[in-house]
Amino acid sequence: MPGIAFGRFDDSFSASSLKSYLAEFISTLIFVFAGVGSAIAYTKLTGTSALDPSGLIAVAIAHGLALFVAVSIGANISGGHVNPAVTFGLALGGQITVLTGIFYWIAQLVGAVVGAFLVEFVTGTSTPTHGLSAGVGAFEGVVFEIIITFGLVYTVYATAADPKKGDLGTIAPLAIGLIVGANILAAGPFSGASMNPARSFGPAVASGNFSDLWIYFVGPLIGGGIAGLVYTYAFINSSHAPVSSSEF
Amino acid sequence: MPGIAFGRFDDSFSASSLKSYLAEFISTLIFVFAGVGSAIAYTKLTGTSALDPSGLIAVAIAHGLALFVAVSIGANISGGHVNPAVTFGLALGGQITVLTGIFYWIAQLVGAVVGAFLVEFVTGTSTPTHGLSAGVGAFEGVVFEIIITFGLVYTVYATAADPKKGDLGTIAPLAIGLIVGANILAAGPFSGASMNPARSFGPAVASGNFSDLWIYFVGPLIGGGIAGLVYTYAFINSSHAPVSSSEF
Amino acid sequence: MPGIAFGRFDDSFSASSLKSYLAEFISTLIFVFAGVGSAIAYTKLTGTSALDPSGLIAVAIAHGLALFVAVSIGANISGGHVNPAVTFGLALGGQITVLTGIFYWIAQLVGAVVGAFLVEFVTGTSTPTHGLSAGVGAFEGVVFEIIITFGLVYTVYATAADPKKGDLGTIAPLAIGLIVGANILAAGPFSGASMNPARSFGPAVASGNFSDLWIYFVGPLIGGGIAGLVYTYAFINSSHAPVSSSEF
Amino acid sequence: MPGIAFGRFDDSFSASSLKSYLAEFISTLIFVFAGVGSAIAYTKLTGTSALDPSGLIAVAIAHGLALFVAVSIGANISGGHVNPAVTFGLALGGQITVLTGIFYWIAQLVGAVVGAFLVEFVTGTSTPTHGLSAGVGAFEGVVFEIIITFGLVYTVYATAADPKKGDLGTIAPLAIGLIVGANILAAGPFSGASMNPARSFGPAVASGNFSDLWIYFVGPLIGGGIAGLVYTYAFINSSHAPVSSSEF
Repeated sequence: MPGIAFGRFDDSFSASSLKSYLAEFISTLIFVFAGVGSAIAYTKLTGTSALDPSGLIAVAIAHGLALFVAVSIGANISGGHVNPAVTFGLALGGQITVLTGIFYWIAQLVGAVVGAFLVEFVTGTSTPTHGLSAGVGAFEGVVFEIIITFGLVYTVYATAADPKKGDLGTIAPLAIGLIVGANILAAGPFSGASMNPARSFGPAVASGNFSDLWIYFVGPLIGGGIAGLVYTYAFINSSHAPVSSSEF
Repeated sequence: MPGIAFGRFDDSFSASSLKSYLAEFISTLIFVFAGVGSAIAYTKLTGTSALDPSGLIAVAIAHGLALFVAVSIGANISGGHVNPAVTFGLALGGQITVLTGIFYWIAQLVGAVVGAFLVEFVTGTSTPTHGLSAGVGAFEGVVFEIIITFGLVYTVYATAADPKKGDLGTIAPLAIGLIVGANILAAGPFSGASMNPARSFGPAVASGNFSDLWIYFVGPLIGGGIAGLVYTYAFINSSHAPVSSSEF
Repeated sequence: MPGIAFGRFDDSFSASSLKSYLAEFISTLIFVFAGVGSAIAYTKLTGTSALDPSGLIAVAIAHGLALFVAVSIGANISGGHVNPAVTFGLALGGQITVLTGIFYWIAQLVGAVVGAFLVEFVTGTSTPTHGLSAGVGAFEGVVFEIIITFGLVYTVYATAADPKKGDLGTIAPLAIGLIVGANILAAGPFSGASMNPARSFGPAVASGNFSDLWIYFVGPLIGGGIAGLVYTYAFINSSHAPVSSSEF
Repeated sequence: MPGIAFGRFDDSFSASSLKSYLAEFISTLIFVFAGVGSAIAYTKLTGTSALDPSGLIAVAIAHGLALFVAVSIGANISGGHVNPAVTFGLALGGQITVLTGIFYWIAQLVGAVVGAFLVEFVTGTSTPTHGLSAGVGAFEGVVFEIIITFGLVYTVYATAADPKKGDLGTIAPLAIGLIVGANILAAGPFSGASMNPARSFGPAVASGNFSDLWIYFVGPLIGGGIAGLVYTYAFINSSHAPVSSSEF
């Protein structure tokens, strides 16, 4: 697993690759629907979009649980990325080819857009978008997203992508979903705690509001990329012990 | 596993089938008791049935955890459907015969009715029923239930029914329960977030209030049916790799 | 596993039996400390013991998570009963001898008393006891405890005691803990949702308040006993398929 | 595994040891960032640092989930201690040498300091530190931390370090994280519920406020040490059954 690989065009159109894109589309749609829906539900109950601690808990739990499930249901088909930053971090570590990764991105972004439009239709409410809270600068926001996405993608590597993961793989989707729940409880009131360009892109398209969107591409991609490189070079490639292919 | 099968009458009355019906009855009773009970408990504490965010969290957690357990305790006996929409989705994918599925439905519906009457008796409170919130039309409500039940039944397929599920089967009941918790946090204040005709039917019978009940049959059955067809034809039947029967 | 067994006196004093009692003592202490502590913590924060929905969530989560852990840490040593109603239900199904079960009861009750005294000491607060809410009669309270303890002990059987449990055993402690969390969300504001004579006994001794205590022995023991008999005769003893001892 | 071992200097600088220190550094950074961040997020939303029940739930869930993940991602590399009290308890039971343990401590403390400085930078808020609530004496505070850290380190032993743990190892990180969540719901409003010298040390350094810090070294180290000795001598060393090394 030596590094970045571009990939062959025909591999990216095999039957199994096409199934992967469908799986990423469905997983991301389900995740975005529940996540964005939980924010709208809070506003429906309270008449305000300014979160109080109960609202933050509701949004964090909804995202954590929905991502756990979205990763689980994709795990055996596409690997359950559900997030362009995860795909990017895995590509930098050579776990997926660049070409296939681009199709994953498309599937995730389209799934997020469809999910956002659906939630807008059924709730009759314009979808809220990620944005920085008052008093949070763009640089702080980007750094916030870098740090929390680093944690997410590092978790993907340690529990799911590492060939030596062993039994840990059984609870990998839970760890991946719940670090997002925990990070929302910390970062939600500051940067919005996206950690996922697709999660931010869907509502931006559905609502037509693209302000601040760049922050949720730049921050997560940098954080996810760093996690992919750190984990790969510190813990995977540096290992000289032979790993049987059946573990992977 | 080619498609819908009607089934033989004697198979549906074997000892193991009868045990399945008992298991579905008990699982659904326990789920409905805790779920409906959590809604009544909120009213007991606050004097109102209009949810605030804390109340929504309490109801979502109660349903998510109780369904996780209800699926777990039925898993080895009946498969742990606990939901006519799940049984319907599995029948469309040929995972259960139509005849046995009908008896599952009866067991689930009777379990839900008994659970609802029990909770009504011990709390001394008429059971609240599912219904659309003010401003939500019937069509939007049905579409809401279709989407969220699609997510639930797709999860049942990907984590429990797919012969290639592997280790994912260990956490399948958790994924199935918690997608319901996540979806309630999104849909609860709009459609009621039933995803389960039995969950809606029990309190309707116990309270004698059948208004809107059709929505919670039509929406979940359509959503569950679509999930069963999509997953089966995209990810199970299309697979040409031989699957050993022992995995199933 | 044919039915109730009294047991031999020397078996109940083997090294492995003595370790079991120590494990039950420690598990019950940890569970009662966190559970009772969470109720006192709510009062510390709000100045009132009258729960609101957030307080109910806090208490339900604390009990659910602490019981999950208490069962986990005892699982390989004592089986992780942590509850006289569980031990009683398992004895009725022949899973533990009556004599050893009596020592389990003593270990659990003593652990609960020590846990309650410790929480009283460190918080400087008299321990709150289980009791019926205003408007809930003793009969309704007992029936409430019967139903919810039935669910708990049925879960213990289906996920942990059943020789055919398979992979479900991996998440058994989670199911056992979280059904208690779900049931507290439903029953807490009515019967108090004990499901566990030891959980009620510890604070009763520490505070010297024994009113209503009988309800939390009678209800849970009846509910747990029924679950043990139903599960054993419907799903274990009725099975004619040979079960390899290694599964158990 | 007979008792405390000092260790060889060269073992503590092997490639695999150096990787362990990096893994502890990263896990502790992620845990402290999310944990401290959740407390700051509450203040951001409410304008006050005085917790209400919703705030306590948010902080407890954030710590529980983040620790679950921090333990998971370190499990296969360093064992996932993330806590000097855990390392100390494991050293007393002979599970890690004293010398390597000292380097673990350094990695954990540095990770916590970096995590605290990062959260201070991105939120623009001085990090809150652990401290006793009004009316809680130092002795009660220390005893509180002893008891709850005993529960945590006992859980580490029973689910992760015990060579006879079996399938329980799969959910060990979940049990370790969630006992911290449960204990915060009980102890948070009294002692602050640290259970972890590193978790307290990072914010103390970042904010320059070292008052009460000794309590969160003394209490957790005593509690963790007692758990290590009790578990080792009661349940590991006392066992005469041969244990195959492959289980460990």
